[in-house]
Amino acid sequence: MKNRLKALSALALAAPLTGCVAEKEQNPNIILFLIDDMGWLDTSVPFGEEVYPFNMRHDTPNLSALAEKGAIMSSAYVCPVSTPTRTSIMSGMNAAHTRITNYTSVDRDWNPDATDTPEAQEKDVINRTEWNINGITPTKVEGLERCVHVTPFPQILKDNGYYTIHVGKGHWAPNGTPAANPYNMGFCVNVAGQVAGKPRSYYAEENYGNTQDKWNYFSVQNMAEYYGTSTHLTEALTLEAMKTLDYPIDNGIPFFLNFCHHAVHTPIHRDPRFFQKYVDRGMDEGQARFASMCEGVDKSLGDLIAYLEKKGVMDNTAIIFMSDNGGNSENLSKGGVRHTQNSPLREGKASCYEAGIRIPMVVYWKGKVAAGTRLNTPVVAEDLYPTILEMAGIEEYQTVQEIDGQSIVRLLTKGSAAVREAMDKGRITNQEEAYDFQIDQSISGIDPEREVLAHFPHQWKPYQLHDIDYMSSLRKGDWKIVYRHREQTLELYNIAEDITERNDLSLSNPEKLQEMAAALTAKLEGYDALLPTFRSTGERVPMPVELATKTNK
Amino acid sequence: MKNRLKALSALALAAPLTGCVAEKEQNPNIILFLIDDMGWLDTSVPFGEEVYPFNMRHDTPNLSALAEKGAIMSSAYVCPVSTPTRTSIMSGMNAAHTRITNYTSVDRDWNPDATDTPEAQEKDVINRTEWNINGITPTKVEGLERCVHVTPFPQILKDNGYYTIHVGKGHWAPNGTPAANPYNMGFCVNVAGQVAGKPRSYYAEENYGNTQDKWNYFSVQNMAEYYGTSTHLTEALTLEAMKTLDYPIDNGIPFFLNFCHHAVHTPIHRDPRFFQKYVDRGMDEGQARFASMCEGVDKSLGDLIAYLEKKGVMDNTAIIFMSDNGGNSENLSKGGVRHTQNSPLREGKASCYEAGIRIPMVVYWKGKVAAGTRLNTPVVAEDLYPTILEMAGIEEYQTVQEIDGQSIVRLLTKGSAAVREAMDKGRITNQEEAYDFQIDQSISGIDPEREVLAHFPHQWKPYQLHDIDYMSSLRKGDWKIVYRHREQTLELYNIAEDITERNDLSLSNPEKLQEMAAALTAKLEGYDALLPTFRSTGERVPMPVELATKTNK
Repeated sequence: MKNRLKALSALALAAPLTGCVAEKEQNPNIILFLIDDMGWLDTSVPFGEEVYPFNMRHDTPNLSALAEKGAIMSSAYVCPVSTPTRTSIMSGMNAAHTRITNYTSVDRDWNPDATDTPEAQEKDVINRTEWNINGITPTKVEGLERCVHVTPFPQILKDNGYYTIHVGKGHWAPNGTPAANPYNMGFCVNVAGQVAGKPRSYYAEENYGNTQDKWNYFSVQNMAEYYGTSTHLTEALTLEAMKTLDYPIDNGIPFFLNFCHHAVHTPIHRDPRFFQKYVDRGMDEGQARFASMCEGVDKSLGDLIAYLEKKGVMDNTAIIFMSDNGGNSENLSKGGVRHTQNSPLREGKASCYEAGIRIPMVVYWKGKVAAGTRLNTPVVAEDLYPTILEMAGIEEYQTVQEIDGQSIVRLLTKGSAAVREAMDKGRITNQEEAYDFQIDQSISGIDPEREVLAHFPHQWKPYQLHDIDYMSSLRKGDWKIVYRHREQTLELYNIAEDITERNDLSLSNPEKLQEMAAALTAKLEGYDALLPTFRSTGERVPMPVELATKTNK
Repeated sequence: MKNRLKALSALALAAPLTGCVAEKEQNPNIILFLIDDMGWLDTSVPFGEEVYPFNMRHDTPNLSALAEKGAIMSSAYVCPVSTPTRTSIMSGMNAAHTRITNYTSVDRDWNPDATDTPEAQEKDVINRTEWNINGITPTKVEGLERCVHVTPFPQILKDNGYYTIHVGKGHWAPNGTPAANPYNMGFCVNVAGQVAGKPRSYYAEENYGNTQDKWNYFSVQNMAEYYGTSTHLTEALTLEAMKTLDYPIDNGIPFFLNFCHHAVHTPIHRDPRFFQKYVDRGMDEGQARFASMCEGVDKSLGDLIAYLEKKGVMDNTAIIFMSDNGGNSENLSKGGVRHTQNSPLREGKASCYEAGIRIPMVVYWKGKVAAGTRLNTPVVAEDLYPTILEMAGIEEYQTVQEIDGQSIVRLLTKGSAAVREAMDKGRITNQEEAYDFQIDQSISGIDPEREVLAHFPHQWKPYQLHDIDYMSSLRKGDWKIVYRHREQTLELYNIAEDITERNDLSLSNPEKLQEMAAALTAKLEGYDALLPTFRSTGERVPMPVELATKTNK
């Protein structure tokens, strides 16, 4: 009740146009600004130790400006593909724990896992896992299997008086299940929420896919106003998001906006506002299209911030900007050189190498997050659940699921203050020092050496991608172990010294390999994670520790 | 400001679970429960002088129960087709005044008016009018022509703190215009709002039309949760409407729900909950399908009322039940005998005879509307605009358009009280007396002899329908004049004595004909209404008064 009353007391004092700042400070507005398939190197903001050449490809001035007012999260990790990250955010559970480790199909009970070409399948020794292909569900439904029953955090926000809004991509579960409908996930308002992992078209000239010649499931709904105009989907979603905010803002009701852009996912459709500029820079067609989509979502961020400032609520609105997985390095229409598009990070989307799971993340929260700071403590997708609820001032809540994530509120507040102090005292004088600066757990509440698990026991495409399919990895401090299920091989990297993951230390440092293999094994066993099985025996592939011991003999 | 504060003061006191009854009484919740194509005779509630046989076709127990708690509006009139009624409700303007007199197409700038077969067109002396085929728009858009700029009343409710929700059919304007999006019409929440005049399918087994083989514009959006189940669209919309009400009710925020069912419009798709029952009564397939759809929307009303009672807000929620035009008497798949399906009323949808424009209407408003009463004063679609705003306690508001409707709040309150008194004093002892009882204007504020205009200068189908196309009519007290544009003929009926409109008195009572022709002419001229023109000369057809004078010579 306590929190509910607190939220509603904001309503109580909202009538005067002056608003009620004191109350509002207790219940900040919160925006999760989630981009699809945007890589660690796809923005102007340097999340790494230095400004890499790829940071200069796309102009994202609004994100850069936001980073100056907030904190850069340099070690933010999510899952290799969309759905696992989104269901981890909604559930607070690790993907290995939900057993939702690949993207969900539009069709219920359908496993989208790819298998090799018939020829290759002869050699294919691996069986697909029995993962939860029906995603998450907010309510138990008779006959609905292979899904996880969870209490989505927006429901808790709503129950505490928050005005909860979903805009854009959902992708939490297939059609024909409760999670296909944002109104079942704790949202008061839904605009264009759908199960599809991508839009059929970003072009209003094509009615965002609402035509009779192709499959509708990927057509974007609730956008009829723009049909036949030249409004790119990114801009249309932004305009719609702002419309839904008028009511809570005008009435002093604290809101949570789950703003999920379809961009910069395929199809790579040019944003007409920025395309020509990148062509003029000499980019090939595909690169220019992709670049224009990246600047398009940055423009969306800028337009939303301008709206919040005009409404006078920017000072009481927290913004979390992030991507749902790493940049896609396998898509031809994106242009450039495949498998190098996230350089210096290795590979990309669907891989457990850094480029697949490390994402751009910036957090703005005026008066709470020290401006212009960089926080290097690892953050994972499931942390958002307890974090957002704590930001909202909600201390007690019940959930049907066990939460794996940790609130990073202390990291954001006390942690950023510590970094600011180090900067003021001259202990941080340049980007490299900022990148290396670690915040003690006694300050942030989070172990800077916490273990970060990535688990993708799947084949992504209908052809083998050596550095992408069937992998697990664990990062702990400077070290990272990578397990390839298909080959049953282990690799060991020192991320601090070798962010490219090219220098495999598994043979030269067997002790560390064994230590990391044991840690990865413990993590997988702790979550009761699924691993693929051998076609021949039906037995699951060995745990990393078994292999490490072997390798060590 | 005054009204805004009043609405918000309801929020202010809402925090305690006890709510704030005193405040709530100032800001009642309001539900407009709008059915599509439901005829005057399609319910168990007798809106006429007696219980006609067709009142016994369909079981609508929930509407009957609501009528016992509220008032039956026996003389409620709307437009012959969907869009004009819906745009009159949203604008407060008469259809002849908005010049939106036919239904709008899904395509912008497209005129859906039918023309005759090529052969018949040789004889076709009439040209289509330049009516506003792009419907209404809440904002002026450069290049958007043939539309009317209006301030929709939901915007005024929202600006005054009301939580405004749209569910179901919109049909205010085509795709590619602002009114295609309920978020532009003053709604905080939209579920499945679209421009199409009908759904492609009512069946979840067909994903409500979201398949790849046919045109998407008629597919119902935001319903993915139910795909592949057996949930009829009527039930799905009801479940979604209730979900959207949790937030305002739980937080003591007054709401307006614009609940627009697609049923009972074509396609005539059986509601599995009631179909067999009507087959067992001996109805043919089409009649049973239609009957099951009618009982389906009644069930929706009952489910919604049960929800409101469970939530404890039924006593503070006003419900207006009505249809958007008369029953369709031209549809084969509906079964029965065409052109007699609204008997004893003449014809049906798209006609200016009673069956096309006279609709079932019941108003429930506890403590305001005397229970179990019948109000015979004519009510028209454009009355809803000022009525709903007055019910909400909003006294001052600006609109860009001129409002033609009158608030019927006094009729509903003082008028129903007068009827109740007459019943208690034994001046009304049976249905016939109740039907004849007139409420003095000094009590209700509305002239019981007010003029009711219907204007349909269009051809509805690609073949001529003698009693349907190209008509205007005016009712004044017991009298009604009908003008057929194509033939340039006038008919005169005494509705009180001849509700079937079969006994034309134009020749036997030329004085009344001339009087009514003058009144109809004045009304059309007053609204600057469009009339068709002759192909030969391009001149508009004569005004009724000119014809009456001729007839009279």
